[in-house]
Amino acid sequence: MVHHAPNPVGAEALASDLAIRVYYEDTDFSGRVYHASYLRFLERGRTEWLRARGFEQRAMARENSFVFVVRRLTVDFIKAASMDDLISVQTRLARLGAASFDFRQTVLCNDACLLGAQVNVVSLKGGRPTRLPAEVRARLLG
Amino acid sequence: MVHHAPNPVGAEALASDLAIRVYYEDTDFSGRVYHASYLRFLERGRTEWLRARGFEQRAMARENSFVFVVRRLTVDFIKAASMDDLISVQTRLARLGAASFDFRQTVLCNDACLLGAQVNVVSLKGGRPTRLPAEVRARLLG
Amino acid sequence: MVHHAPNPVGAEALASDLAIRVYYEDTDFSGRVYHASYLRFLERGRTEWLRARGFEQRAMARENSFVFVVRRLTVDFIKAASMDDLISVQTRLARLGAASFDFRQTVLCNDACLLGAQVNVVSLKGGRPTRLPAEVRARLLG
Amino acid sequence: MVHHAPNPVGAEALASDLAIRVYYEDTDFSGRVYHASYLRFLERGRTEWLRARGFEQRAMARENSFVFVVRRLTVDFIKAASMDDLISVQTRLARLGAASFDFRQTVLCNDACLLGAQVNVVSLKGGRPTRLPAEVRARLLG
Repeated sequence: MVHHAPNPVGAEALASDLAIRVYYEDTDFSGRVYHASYLRFLERGRTEWLRARGFEQRAMARENSFVFVVRRLTVDFIKAASMDDLISVQTRLARLGAASFDFRQTVLCNDACLLGAQVNVVSLKGGRPTRLPAEVRARLLG
Repeated sequence: MVHHAPNPVGAEALASDLAIRVYYEDTDFSGRVYHASYLRFLERGRTEWLRARGFEQRAMARENSFVFVVRRLTVDFIKAASMDDLISVQTRLARLGAASFDFRQTVLCNDACLLGAQVNVVSLKGGRPTRLPAEVRARLLG
Repeated sequence: MVHHAPNPVGAEALASDLAIRVYYEDTDFSGRVYHASYLRFLERGRTEWLRARGFEQRAMARENSFVFVVRRLTVDFIKAASMDDLISVQTRLARLGAASFDFRQTVLCNDACLLGAQVNVVSLKGGRPTRLPAEVRARLLG
Repeated sequence: MVHHAPNPVGAEALASDLAIRVYYEDTDFSGRVYHASYLRFLERGRTEWLRARGFEQRAMARENSFVFVVRRLTVDFIKAASMDDLISVQTRLARLGAASFDFRQTVLCNDACLLGAQVNVVSLKGGRPTRLPAEVRARLLG
């Protein structure tokens, strides 16, 4: 039976890992990764997390059903990555609400934590927040 | 009277200048501007060149009339810009064909030429090349 | 006389405005501005805020004195901008600590608030937090 | 025995493939991939091609030996990719000169060719073109 998740989501909500190589495009003249590049990495992590649960965002947009939009994010920058580093983006669902949910994401390199993020995502339909259908909630809880 | 332009377009086709500041986002770990950032600068230059002639690309896309799409570009990288540099993108129409046209663009910094580019743009409607109406040609010839 | 600022910084700390045009590069397939593009806009705003107070970040990096690094940011996404929009990034100093300070930034378009951000910046020397000299504090308080 | 390569490089010069997923960050409001994003994809392809032959560009920059810099590129945009597409960047060495070499790159999606590029890369040391040592030439011919 599908039901509204307790808040916060328990450990049973699957996490996922995405390996990302740092390229020239991601760095800046400080010699390290540009701070906003991590936002792109985090978004790739969420995209793959969603894809693993059957959400293809291009199809969602085309079908004019609902789309997932970032409403709020907090990022703690702890340590910087550099060109050629192989980093890992870890994504897990931290909270599931009626029309929104939270991701907790971390970026690691060689077991060191580079960055922690909390990302609040809202479900929009026609530009307005919309309740997540039970079937969608079930998939998010994966 | 509007008529098809001679090929190439004469000096009467107005050039335009766009001043751009180099920010962190544009650089890479070499300490200089990332090579693909110049493509963004060139696109800004073309957008402003078109805007000055009455072409708003968001409106064009929304009205499902035609859109301008880059089909081919050649870029010569001569000298690199750095963080905080104030550069100038110069854009002029170099050729006007039936359904396409060419820009010639240069990027300067303190009178030194950093880059030269030739950009071939095609006019598409419903995904297919479409002849430029006389009114559009007149505006492109500015 | 230069002294440590009360916390938070009073209204006398000058704010600054930066006008930014939205280009193709800033948008995504949703038709709006990509969420991480705003981070680039905010960074441009801080760079110009700092430049207006005599901080050239390329020179700071080259002279191996100290550099300013983002340690934490929180962004609230309220409303989306689109291609061709002319937006405004407003930046002001919200807190000045011993080795760090906070910016409060907002992005506006036609008087509507698109985004609010709090950005915590730390002063690093040789990779470690370093106290801001009195002369630097005076300039930050503008 | 290592010797200067005939020009152009024969079929024995290994090609390499890099699979790339298209994310939000790569698209623009046209709904397709932003034209300059392909330049980032091509650069990733060259970086992996070089890595497979033992060239780590961060190490090269740090050791102040030589660096590889793009001097000229020509790109033909044939067909556009979209969000969620899985594309393939194919990279091969097309010419090896004394202090420069050419890549030929293509981007494919589901066997359709999206883009073809020719990229001229020069070897710089202290900012000046420098002859490629025999050992380096041997690795490039891989």
